[in-house]
Amino acid sequence: MQKPKYQLIVDFIKDKISKGEWTIGSRIPSQRHLAKMFDVNRSTVITALEELMADGLIEGKAGMGTIVTNNTWTLMGEQSSTNWNEKVTLGIHKPSISTVQEINEAESNHHLIQLSKGELSPEIFPLEEMRSILQKVSNQMTPFGYEEPKGNLKLRQAISDYLKNRGIDVSPSSILVVSGALQALHLISIGLLQRGSSVFLEVPSYLYSLTVFQSMGMELKGIPMDKKGIKVDSIYQTKGKGKSILYTIPTFHNPTGTLMQKNRREELLEYCKREQLPIIEDDVYRDLWIDTIPPEPLKSMDYYGSVLYIGSLSKTLSPGLRIGWVVGAESVINRLADLKMQSDYGSSTFSQLVAMEWLSSGLYDQHLETVREQLKVRRRTALEALNKHLSSYATWEVPTGGFFIWIKIKPAFKVKRLFDKALSKGLLLNPGSIYAEQSGQFIRLSFGFASINEIKVGIFQLSQIIKDVDD
Amino acid sequence: MQKPKYQLIVDFIKDKISKGEWTIGSRIPSQRHLAKMFDVNRSTVITALEELMADGLIEGKAGMGTIVTNNTWTLMGEQSSTNWNEKVTLGIHKPSISTVQEINEAESNHHLIQLSKGELSPEIFPLEEMRSILQKVSNQMTPFGYEEPKGNLKLRQAISDYLKNRGIDVSPSSILVVSGALQALHLISIGLLQRGSSVFLEVPSYLYSLTVFQSMGMELKGIPMDKKGIKVDSIYQTKGKGKSILYTIPTFHNPTGTLMQKNRREELLEYCKREQLPIIEDDVYRDLWIDTIPPEPLKSMDYYGSVLYIGSLSKTLSPGLRIGWVVGAESVINRLADLKMQSDYGSSTFSQLVAMEWLSSGLYDQHLETVREQLKVRRRTALEALNKHLSSYATWEVPTGGFFIWIKIKPAFKVKRLFDKALSKGLLLNPGSIYAEQSGQFIRLSFGFASINEIKVGIFQLSQIIKDVDD
Repeated sequence: MQKPKYQLIVDFIKDKISKGEWTIGSRIPSQRHLAKMFDVNRSTVITALEELMADGLIEGKAGMGTIVTNNTWTLMGEQSSTNWNEKVTLGIHKPSISTVQEINEAESNHHLIQLSKGELSPEIFPLEEMRSILQKVSNQMTPFGYEEPKGNLKLRQAISDYLKNRGIDVSPSSILVVSGALQALHLISIGLLQRGSSVFLEVPSYLYSLTVFQSMGMELKGIPMDKKGIKVDSIYQTKGKGKSILYTIPTFHNPTGTLMQKNRREELLEYCKREQLPIIEDDVYRDLWIDTIPPEPLKSMDYYGSVLYIGSLSKTLSPGLRIGWVVGAESVINRLADLKMQSDYGSSTFSQLVAMEWLSSGLYDQHLETVREQLKVRRRTALEALNKHLSSYATWEVPTGGFFIWIKIKPAFKVKRLFDKALSKGLLLNPGSIYAEQSGQFIRLSFGFASINEIKVGIFQLSQIIKDVDD
Repeated sequence: MQKPKYQLIVDFIKDKISKGEWTIGSRIPSQRHLAKMFDVNRSTVITALEELMADGLIEGKAGMGTIVTNNTWTLMGEQSSTNWNEKVTLGIHKPSISTVQEINEAESNHHLIQLSKGELSPEIFPLEEMRSILQKVSNQMTPFGYEEPKGNLKLRQAISDYLKNRGIDVSPSSILVVSGALQALHLISIGLLQRGSSVFLEVPSYLYSLTVFQSMGMELKGIPMDKKGIKVDSIYQTKGKGKSILYTIPTFHNPTGTLMQKNRREELLEYCKREQLPIIEDDVYRDLWIDTIPPEPLKSMDYYGSVLYIGSLSKTLSPGLRIGWVVGAESVINRLADLKMQSDYGSSTFSQLVAMEWLSSGLYDQHLETVREQLKVRRRTALEALNKHLSSYATWEVPTGGFFIWIKIKPAFKVKRLFDKALSKGLLLNPGSIYAEQSGQFIRLSFGFASINEIKVGIFQLSQIIKDVDD
């Protein structure tokens, strides 16, 4: 005889509790979630929860949902267990903003139209080339252990050559291989800045959607932008020198897509040199230019070692590689390398060897040409759909590279709960509010990830939702 | 005409300075180092440095070596550059202990006999199997991007199955994939503990050689061990409950090789349950048993979710994979997964796929049998050499698993500068002092990495050095 369905739920929850996976004090999933999980009616879930409550294992608490209150051992009269849940909220590092956590989760839902993802479409993934490179790596493989603190030397040499083509002339000893640009920021936050430091940055900025600097006690100070980039004359250091740093994404800025002009770059460098304000240049979108090659990086004009330069293969090849780099003064790179060793003992050997092959074989540059063609088509598709469906509701600038369009919903239309409404209709968007408090009327739309058809459908849906939200 | 040799050195240093790789205030390499680097006499180096001093680019400072004082631009009358060097010493996270940094660097020197490395020999590396797995991964590969926050689901399923064989029954949702065990500790330190928390741990302990907890403001409290493991009756919580945690390596402890006995495990768990003291169980050496299967993990007897369990493939397969896992209460794992996303957006897809194939194909268990046979031979070699050459100078216990022998030099012999002397003779050892202040008379010898012959030669050399040091 088959067990009644509610019993399956009871058994599942009892199992989770008795194994210690759901500890005392932790919240169990919502009724809605459980109903979906077991494909039953809400009433079946309620029957199951009532039985567990009768057993004394769970309890509904006002405003907190349903909480585990006992496990089979505490019921047997033993003492209560460690309260990890308290620890979960105590640590030094802040949790992600809840909307960002929600987006992180929703991004692995394949049923959604993903107009949020800052990553290239699987359609652009160079599967054949990746296979041939894996083959080569496999053939040339020798036994491997931990890599050098700064990363595999051949990879650093390949990165050095790559950077030379972008105007940056540095030796491998000034390069640290990291597991993506975010890790570079994490290492900088724990290794180079004091508690109480200020981080100047463009507003809005991708950095506002993270808690990497704030968690370590640094303050973000937003500087407004215009069409040429960050407004240098708005930077105003209040604290003493040496207590501040500037973070910028000069090339195809995230989320706005802005390209900092050459004279603005010079102005910024000049200012930072005069004020002894070190710069973190996040340049992960550089290779995604669509129309013309962007002005050279700030780092290429940095003769004082005051720019820490960050690059990555995540945006152009695949984030699954987890390979990026930081370039800077050797003493700084040594310090960051030591911290990297202390955080994870270096990046994956496979990923480093694969990245090295991509860069040194010339396949990477070939791949970029394909990417640019694809981005051109996708941008055109997105702009056509925007013009067709959204021009009464919103305005935007045409980005000359990267894959983001920063869309401003006209003040006449309410955007509150736009994110939730879109999500409930199967459309994932990044609300502007995660990039700056004052960007509530904006959304960041990515044309890099979804299929051409999804881009069209998604933008149409978006127009309908804006119309409806306003009703 | 060829440039004079000193000119090569001058050009090299000028280039480093003008590119900003060596910033103002940073120390240039020692004369000895430069002489070695360019394969010249010390006098040639001095000629070069004198020219650079005359140019005003560098300056000797008492007690600090030679410092960069200007660069070509500051000499032209422009303002001085950002002082990154100040920042290098300011950050929140502490640098590694200098001996540990030295060891990290020396470990990539292939000319040394490595009796220090806590990693398996290249001779034991399963190259053919690794190639066939890469082949499989390549064939099955589909376009990939970011992985799920907790790691690839198939890998977590494979880890769940693997753990079931070690007595731990948990579902994939309670498992977080990390880039090695150290990253797990890093995430715990920034995510679960408050500043001012106490971390109880065995003394000596591997953890003393790291700064991961101390950097975040936690205090290490060493608890003595006996042959059965940590002495539970010596744990004494002074702070309030919820402000402490216990870190232990119960199975083939690093550095002592001690195996915690079953009844000691029960006693420890019982104590920690009563005192509500959460446990971090670092179990990365479990699969390296040589004589008999070790007692089951603490986690297997943890019905309260109070044990956070850490495992890894680094010690048994290859650290280059950078794949480990943390297992614990789901709410804790969720929190750590969010922090992992904030530190590096997940581990390498390649590494995850390769690890998944190793575990799920059964090749991993086969490989472990080879490893155990090899370790048995290596242990025998090491013990024979120790008995032959070192028995007048030192004592040790025979480890029943792992690859460390914890050697106590008899009090009659001085060990000060033993590490440096050994290194200058081409022998790399880990001095006991990095694992506990009071372990100055110990050294940790690894028989896992060096070749059989190197083990013999290294131990003989060691005996000679102890004899000489004492002279």
